[in-house]
Amino acid sequence: MPQSVPLFQIEPVSKAQDQLIQQKIDLKTKPPGALGQLESLALQIARIQGAKQLQIVNPTMLVFAGDHGIAAEGVSIAPSEVTRQMVQNFAHGGAAINVFCRQLGFNLEVIDCGILTPVEDVEGIIDQRLGAGTAAIHLEPAMTLACVDKGFAMAQALIERHHQAGCNLVAFGEMGIGNTSSAAAIMAAIMQLDVADCVGRGTGINSETLERKQMLIELALLLHQSAMTGPRQVLACLGGFEIVQMTGAMLAAAERKMLVVVDGFIATAAALVAVNINANVRDYLIFAHRSEEQGHQRMLEHLKAKPLLSLGLRLGEGTGAALALPLIQAAVNFYNQMASFSDAGIEAVV
Amino acid sequence: MPQSVPLFQIEPVSKAQDQLIQQKIDLKTKPPGALGQLESLALQIARIQGAKQLQIVNPTMLVFAGDHGIAAEGVSIAPSEVTRQMVQNFAHGGAAINVFCRQLGFNLEVIDCGILTPVEDVEGIIDQRLGAGTAAIHLEPAMTLACVDKGFAMAQALIERHHQAGCNLVAFGEMGIGNTSSAAAIMAAIMQLDVADCVGRGTGINSETLERKQMLIELALLLHQSAMTGPRQVLACLGGFEIVQMTGAMLAAAERKMLVVVDGFIATAAALVAVNINANVRDYLIFAHRSEEQGHQRMLEHLKAKPLLSLGLRLGEGTGAALALPLIQAAVNFYNQMASFSDAGIEAVV
Repeated sequence: MPQSVPLFQIEPVSKAQDQLIQQKIDLKTKPPGALGQLESLALQIARIQGAKQLQIVNPTMLVFAGDHGIAAEGVSIAPSEVTRQMVQNFAHGGAAINVFCRQLGFNLEVIDCGILTPVEDVEGIIDQRLGAGTAAIHLEPAMTLACVDKGFAMAQALIERHHQAGCNLVAFGEMGIGNTSSAAAIMAAIMQLDVADCVGRGTGINSETLERKQMLIELALLLHQSAMTGPRQVLACLGGFEIVQMTGAMLAAAERKMLVVVDGFIATAAALVAVNINANVRDYLIFAHRSEEQGHQRMLEHLKAKPLLSLGLRLGEGTGAALALPLIQAAVNFYNQMASFSDAGIEAVV
Repeated sequence: MPQSVPLFQIEPVSKAQDQLIQQKIDLKTKPPGALGQLESLALQIARIQGAKQLQIVNPTMLVFAGDHGIAAEGVSIAPSEVTRQMVQNFAHGGAAINVFCRQLGFNLEVIDCGILTPVEDVEGIIDQRLGAGTAAIHLEPAMTLACVDKGFAMAQALIERHHQAGCNLVAFGEMGIGNTSSAAAIMAAIMQLDVADCVGRGTGINSETLERKQMLIELALLLHQSAMTGPRQVLACLGGFEIVQMTGAMLAAAERKMLVVVDGFIATAAALVAVNINANVRDYLIFAHRSEEQGHQRMLEHLKAKPLLSLGLRLGEGTGAALALPLIQAAVNFYNQMASFSDAGIEAVV
């Protein structure tokens, strides 16, 4: 890792208490393993928070928005203007992520990382703009390396603010027309895969658009091949502003031992970069939703991730991450609250 | 259907409003279909409740408990006494289902449908006992046909009480050592399958016990072959008391146009019988959790069911159904609350 990278000091979780934690889980009034994925999730959270009592405090949904130069080539079902319109929709409380955050008790924050035109007539959008949309990655680098580092620093400050407010769980969502192209390009570059294995239909493009999207990403990868000497360089070449800040925020959150809930394809691409910058971040990641896109499934496999949900969502915004919160809370609650066999006077089932 | 069957007057849902409902879903600020299974769930609920505004009122978890004569043969990881001990655990609030119901806002009710010895020193267990455990099904019928009908009547009264209290969603869980044997036998009888395709390891038995379980079920099916002339007869021959009352309660809930949330293997077997008694009940069923047991997957396929969760749970108690509630609520909420493209001033994404 080059010296200029902002340092993220992430402690790997300790496995010293694993036996104690596992015993506590196994002595609950249920057959061993009968709570399935909730049991491995409780183990993960107990490794992070300590074996005694788990908790989720001020869960916060961060939605990172940015625009993409490549969108001008029509790689998406919608034009870039829709990014701004959706950010306004977030501010007015009308989007799916607003509905789910209200239902599930998430504090929602929307971060403008660099959409084409800033939203000026509404409150509650955090200004962390790195520009007015990235450059088109098939023609030039999305941004400079200095811009990546600036994005990391902004993301670190954002997380620090939430950490100071007592938040110990952050979920990651995004909005940005064209950002599946950027994410697929990043995935191909980092995992050294063919573009065809990384590109999908996003929110629903047709075959012709899919082919153009694939070709443009191949062009971008060829163009930047020699410049992509590390994960930060990959971000600089392939963007976008929201993916940069998600990556930085994931690393910063892990630094603060927060639970990091990863949404869909774009957030997983950011997680992939984060793991490449500092592998210890992986211990803090909880994967929320498995999308039907083959590219997402390959990244998840690579990250040894088994998401909690698989509902056929393909919306982004953090919707999958939001819907996973009750399951994470259920893992915490069974661990804290369930009676043990001896509490309940039950013959242990083994 | 023989004349003596208690009548369940279940209206099939009307599809007359489908176009209106689908249009309302498609005009929400998201690409068409982007909320995946939540969209088909919203359509189902709107067909039941009407297209305008959806709601979940007083969601209630019903946990039906019963004992099984066949359990004396050691087909389970635990002895029958554990049923009673777990019922006490429910009453004291220490089981997984208590934890999840508290978290998710379920009103929890535990119904003693006929465990070996009634629980006397605790409050809050509803007495709907049909006996002190069923007869061993490999030796004789689990119960009489009159007993099945009595169970249906009790279940109908139970549902009526909740309907009167305004509840419009009931979730179905169970507790009963040995009840996967009964459920597998019912599945084999109704779907005309080999026992091997229906029997699984329950909460975790070894291969030897699995073989014995399979053999005893084969014996039971041979013994009762000529008596099983209809779904009620199947219940009488193969039991158990809790499965009978779950079947009756599902039919009664559909009669009252309530949403019926089906948990795992046992609850799905009850749903299978219910559908065989009155196919209209299917319109009201929401399947919560896909277990890893092949038998469960075959039943789900047969019922054209796509469960919301797949978390590797194998506990029963209604835990899967409980954890599905936030997703059902999310379907209701996006339908009621999300802005449309015109509300939000966004270019429709089509």
